[in-house]
Amino acid sequence: MERKRIVKKIPVAILGATGAVGQRLVSLLFSHPWFEPVALCASGRSEGRPYAEAARWLLPSPMPAAASGMTVRGCAPLPGIALAFSALDSSVAGGVEEAWAGDGALVVSNARNHRMRDDVPLVVPEINPSHLALARLQAWPRGGAIVTNPNCSTIGLALALKPLHDRFGVSSAQVVTLQAASGAGYPGVPSLDLLDNAVPFIEGEEEKLETEPLKLLGTLRDEGRPRVDFAGIRLGAACHRVAVSDGHLAAVSIKLARPAGHGEILSAWSGFSGESAGLGLPSAVESPVRYRDEEDRPQPRLDRDAGGGMAVSAGRLRPCPIMDWKFELLSHNTVRGAAGGTVLLAELCVAKGYVRGAEALGTAATRELEPALA
Amino acid sequence: MERKRIVKKIPVAILGATGAVGQRLVSLLFSHPWFEPVALCASGRSEGRPYAEAARWLLPSPMPAAASGMTVRGCAPLPGIALAFSALDSSVAGGVEEAWAGDGALVVSNARNHRMRDDVPLVVPEINPSHLALARLQAWPRGGAIVTNPNCSTIGLALALKPLHDRFGVSSAQVVTLQAASGAGYPGVPSLDLLDNAVPFIEGEEEKLETEPLKLLGTLRDEGRPRVDFAGIRLGAACHRVAVSDGHLAAVSIKLARPAGHGEILSAWSGFSGESAGLGLPSAVESPVRYRDEEDRPQPRLDRDAGGGMAVSAGRLRPCPIMDWKFELLSHNTVRGAAGGTVLLAELCVAKGYVRGAEALGTAATRELEPALA
Amino acid sequence: MERKRIVKKIPVAILGATGAVGQRLVSLLFSHPWFEPVALCASGRSEGRPYAEAARWLLPSPMPAAASGMTVRGCAPLPGIALAFSALDSSVAGGVEEAWAGDGALVVSNARNHRMRDDVPLVVPEINPSHLALARLQAWPRGGAIVTNPNCSTIGLALALKPLHDRFGVSSAQVVTLQAASGAGYPGVPSLDLLDNAVPFIEGEEEKLETEPLKLLGTLRDEGRPRVDFAGIRLGAACHRVAVSDGHLAAVSIKLARPAGHGEILSAWSGFSGESAGLGLPSAVESPVRYRDEEDRPQPRLDRDAGGGMAVSAGRLRPCPIMDWKFELLSHNTVRGAAGGTVLLAELCVAKGYVRGAEALGTAATRELEPALA
Amino acid sequence: MERKRIVKKIPVAILGATGAVGQRLVSLLFSHPWFEPVALCASGRSEGRPYAEAARWLLPSPMPAAASGMTVRGCAPLPGIALAFSALDSSVAGGVEEAWAGDGALVVSNARNHRMRDDVPLVVPEINPSHLALARLQAWPRGGAIVTNPNCSTIGLALALKPLHDRFGVSSAQVVTLQAASGAGYPGVPSLDLLDNAVPFIEGEEEKLETEPLKLLGTLRDEGRPRVDFAGIRLGAACHRVAVSDGHLAAVSIKLARPAGHGEILSAWSGFSGESAGLGLPSAVESPVRYRDEEDRPQPRLDRDAGGGMAVSAGRLRPCPIMDWKFELLSHNTVRGAAGGTVLLAELCVAKGYVRGAEALGTAATRELEPALA
Repeated sequence: MERKRIVKKIPVAILGATGAVGQRLVSLLFSHPWFEPVALCASGRSEGRPYAEAARWLLPSPMPAAASGMTVRGCAPLPGIALAFSALDSSVAGGVEEAWAGDGALVVSNARNHRMRDDVPLVVPEINPSHLALARLQAWPRGGAIVTNPNCSTIGLALALKPLHDRFGVSSAQVVTLQAASGAGYPGVPSLDLLDNAVPFIEGEEEKLETEPLKLLGTLRDEGRPRVDFAGIRLGAACHRVAVSDGHLAAVSIKLARPAGHGEILSAWSGFSGESAGLGLPSAVESPVRYRDEEDRPQPRLDRDAGGGMAVSAGRLRPCPIMDWKFELLSHNTVRGAAGGTVLLAELCVAKGYVRGAEALGTAATRELEPALA
Repeated sequence: MERKRIVKKIPVAILGATGAVGQRLVSLLFSHPWFEPVALCASGRSEGRPYAEAARWLLPSPMPAAASGMTVRGCAPLPGIALAFSALDSSVAGGVEEAWAGDGALVVSNARNHRMRDDVPLVVPEINPSHLALARLQAWPRGGAIVTNPNCSTIGLALALKPLHDRFGVSSAQVVTLQAASGAGYPGVPSLDLLDNAVPFIEGEEEKLETEPLKLLGTLRDEGRPRVDFAGIRLGAACHRVAVSDGHLAAVSIKLARPAGHGEILSAWSGFSGESAGLGLPSAVESPVRYRDEEDRPQPRLDRDAGGGMAVSAGRLRPCPIMDWKFELLSHNTVRGAAGGTVLLAELCVAKGYVRGAEALGTAATRELEPALA
Repeated sequence: MERKRIVKKIPVAILGATGAVGQRLVSLLFSHPWFEPVALCASGRSEGRPYAEAARWLLPSPMPAAASGMTVRGCAPLPGIALAFSALDSSVAGGVEEAWAGDGALVVSNARNHRMRDDVPLVVPEINPSHLALARLQAWPRGGAIVTNPNCSTIGLALALKPLHDRFGVSSAQVVTLQAASGAGYPGVPSLDLLDNAVPFIEGEEEKLETEPLKLLGTLRDEGRPRVDFAGIRLGAACHRVAVSDGHLAAVSIKLARPAGHGEILSAWSGFSGESAGLGLPSAVESPVRYRDEEDRPQPRLDRDAGGGMAVSAGRLRPCPIMDWKFELLSHNTVRGAAGGTVLLAELCVAKGYVRGAEALGTAATRELEPALA
Repeated sequence: MERKRIVKKIPVAILGATGAVGQRLVSLLFSHPWFEPVALCASGRSEGRPYAEAARWLLPSPMPAAASGMTVRGCAPLPGIALAFSALDSSVAGGVEEAWAGDGALVVSNARNHRMRDDVPLVVPEINPSHLALARLQAWPRGGAIVTNPNCSTIGLALALKPLHDRFGVSSAQVVTLQAASGAGYPGVPSLDLLDNAVPFIEGEEEKLETEPLKLLGTLRDEGRPRVDFAGIRLGAACHRVAVSDGHLAAVSIKLARPAGHGEILSAWSGFSGESAGLGLPSAVESPVRYRDEEDRPQPRLDRDAGGGMAVSAGRLRPCPIMDWKFELLSHNTVRGAAGGTVLLAELCVAKGYVRGAEALGTAATRELEPALA
């Protein structure tokens, strides 16, 4: 497939740039081949201070030099920025994101506020890129729109289920998570809660895990007014916080509509390259679901960085005495499950022509899909 | 119920006294109202050394003064000791326990070696004390017998299921565990495996968790030759090791044969005092299954010591979208799940007349049950 | 020594009762032989709510039943309460404590606000009970006074140095700490700071550790106007936060004014019973400094509960190539270093006659010392 | 400086390839520009098995594909391999390394066995490359020699002291460490020792830390028979194991022979590029000692990967009330402190002409120094 040459980077804003996910975005976007952060936005306290001072940097990789000197701005929309990444806390994300969309920007959001709205795409590029069409329903001026990235624990689960659902039909899935502290941001979980301890509760998490995958794995009906028919999977979730910095582990049991053997499931995963394969998205990885053969993997510390943190790792596929199969699943919650996923989604939006003025950047696929928002 | 006066403590041996579970036994038995440890036995390396030197003491409570000076013996049977507690590693437990039983001792064992044999009782006093009758099938001379305590994660699960199974019938249960490091003994799990990590595999654990509860919750048929009909519950388990010192947490989903409401389940637990209630066993607690109302409990660090570590804690009972109900469960794996459970089982054996020469110590119940081993 | 009979418990208030140290006070005081908590006070948010709801209980031991139903009050002084324990945050402790003292109460405070004032006693009962005399300088009406407990890391160090300073003179001490998360209260240290990590900085801690022990080990001059001559010890501190829940560990090197052998130091510690020995204080332990012979002790998890958490543990005394001797030291920071220390100090104040209306509770020693505040 | 073109990689052996440090070596050497591992050697148990099976891979980065299929060999010398990296356990390293040297190979060793021998170079390339001359004293045939890398905690300390010792003279240094679990290898430290705990003892570590830096910072006298005059620094060490996977943190206090201001010390560090700068060693980093300005750094999780793990990080330089200055220091113990340091040392040996047949690989510096072993 012939690709257009990228002539100029797209200027972007990062909303909530000082928080845990915001820092990951800063880390990814300052070296991104397509995007160029020109505005780091955050809440009142940080406004007006240099980023290096406003952000308590939490990542092992150094803060990008270009970011450190930038002055943090407030979260009001800025003219001329057609693409904004939102890592805002849900307490403020709603209004801010609407203001940016109202100003004509495409907002790619990691916040939960708009995810489940009928007119807002909830998209993982490998799973349901066609759902972007829902954005047509949004009535913002000048092509403004909000598209959303799912919850950190949802992404891993949905990616692992996608190829199985396509081939065999998943009728129900029970998932029990062991989630990392970074999922709660910073300061987030007090250390006294995780020292020699585990907490069997995460506010609102089980609800998200029991609903968001149904929208992701749902089917787009696009006769006139696009809508998503949710997938008919029964999902049950129990969520735990454990003493891990990054990497959500989950024990999953599934019941399939059509019987599948051990090898068939493994081959469904290994053969899965994602619906967005071939679009040339810079953050996409070749095998988004990777199976490990060892009897005691995946493990957060050893496997979370698979595919630069963008691949999820499965392991221990074995028969389940109650449902059909059980397996273990791991995904990097702040990369794949948050910042990296958001960047990949923004790349998809560019490729699909959803970003005003960025058409020259996209791939050959862009042309065909440009009418989507027309 | 009238109780016999305890006139003299029963001399006991502790096999495997230097290990992690052995130390818990030493800690519990040196201040026990019925038992007096007279022999601390361990493998070759420790033999002949003072206990204080041979055991790398791992408990926060100090080593009992009476223990520290005792010379560690080998594991050969000692004449005149009618009761032996075994905390031996399964690699040696089989033969050693048989040797003691062959010498006429009652061996109360925490090892897995004999648990699933047809002629060996696998007993939790609150659940299935009548199963002790299986010991009649053992052909050891002079009343020698082996009785066993289940796996550390089994006990908590079986205790929580028992009152539900009695009232509503449990048809299936899915259990995902977050298990403490002490379950693997010392040195056990390398710290590199649990620092910023969790391991989704424990050798042989899922198999135990999927079978042992069925024997515990089974029904004793005692027409001529006693046998246990296993409970007809479908069990599925996925086991994880997490960075917790003591306390196994589990997420449990259950399907019931007869419908039960939220309040009915809570009242089944709160009303459960155990089959051994009323026998006056010193280590028994009044409510072996305790429910916590907080939305984020039970937690290992906060709840493992409930009832001195002998009660299990349940919490977060809520509907399960796939099965009927789900809840969280916690038990102290080295107290309730190992040493404390073993001591309680030995107390039951005394009360039921299974310990030669200890009749004077038992309760009124003893008389009725003495013929059991005759 | 003949003791007066305790006829009636002293009603006390707990200021800051919902925090981490406040909870420890609640835990200790509701079963205390001398004190009866009648008021649980906290900041605005908690006011008016039942204690069980206002406090997110963090201790493994259950919340005292008598506390759970009490309604949390604000922090304004209450008439008729002559003794208040303060576990307030330093941001509010200053004013609140002065208000209570102004109302005639004796405030025994764990906050740092008044510790270093010339007219405020900073006292560890085993070290410098005579310093209570400084309270005479406070001009509060009706015998009101503020007395203070040192910083959590100071107490352990000062206790270990006290017998050495008395016998040999300590000329300098270098101390490097590995401090527990609970020292920062709750929520306190974010878990992302301590997962697979250690933090070489605690705000204000090194300053306290380099000055407070000098006041504690100082000499009371009481010719007319009492004052404390600070001890002439050079102290250097470096403080670290590590992934431990409770128990501050420290590596200490000391230089002595007079040479002392290994055995002399051990015997100085073992022979030390504290200046308050013989007063019959309920929270006092017999040997406040305990030496462990093992090559790898003291350790937080294993040794913090020595003496119910009120004894400090030393170990690994060995020559220092640079100073004279080095050793390791451990103290329970929220028991000995905070709540337990505060309770012991209040007991001392009662015994010494500093609590209005509590004279009947004191010991024989009370009579002699009653004029102290007259 | 003109560099010779590297025409062909040097075939090397890795001794102890399956252990924790061995795996790091495998990880580094299979993508090394100069070296090509042709033999992975380990103890009896692993011999004959494919590396992928014999090594329980512990690193987050995947096992090099070329390594996984290689058959693990025993540790006997192999003809034709002129360079061997040793990550053997000290229990076997002594004999094996001598056998390889006896067979004419240069052995670059991470084991402690030969470090302090008069005729064995103990070298950190940035500190004392000239000490390689000691190898002349070894009487192995065909240029065989053993050169050694210091203990993991020594390297960081010596690197930080080197520029200060050169400029101001360090007369004494007190160092208290908080060391990572990986320093003990795998399985190494039991998790029960580090969960909610810290251990104030590491076998033999304080002795190494109090002596090895003196050899590293010593002066080579090369009149006829080369020898190293140890540096006249008084060193005191206290070592602790903490719940960190990688990264040794240390609190250091120093006394200087000549007074130095805060800025002078910082500039000594920032100006330090190491004695081996300019040799073009692939693993060398530009600033081996990096100072962080934040008040709470360096921290293991955030700073251990500085310079790809090859730079040490200092911070919190402040006056010491007892000595002159104190600061915090961090180094990656398995990269800089072990495998990475060993590789850098091997690179130095190549550059200096110590590796038979590798002359063509070296830099211009090689020629001048080739006579060293002649």
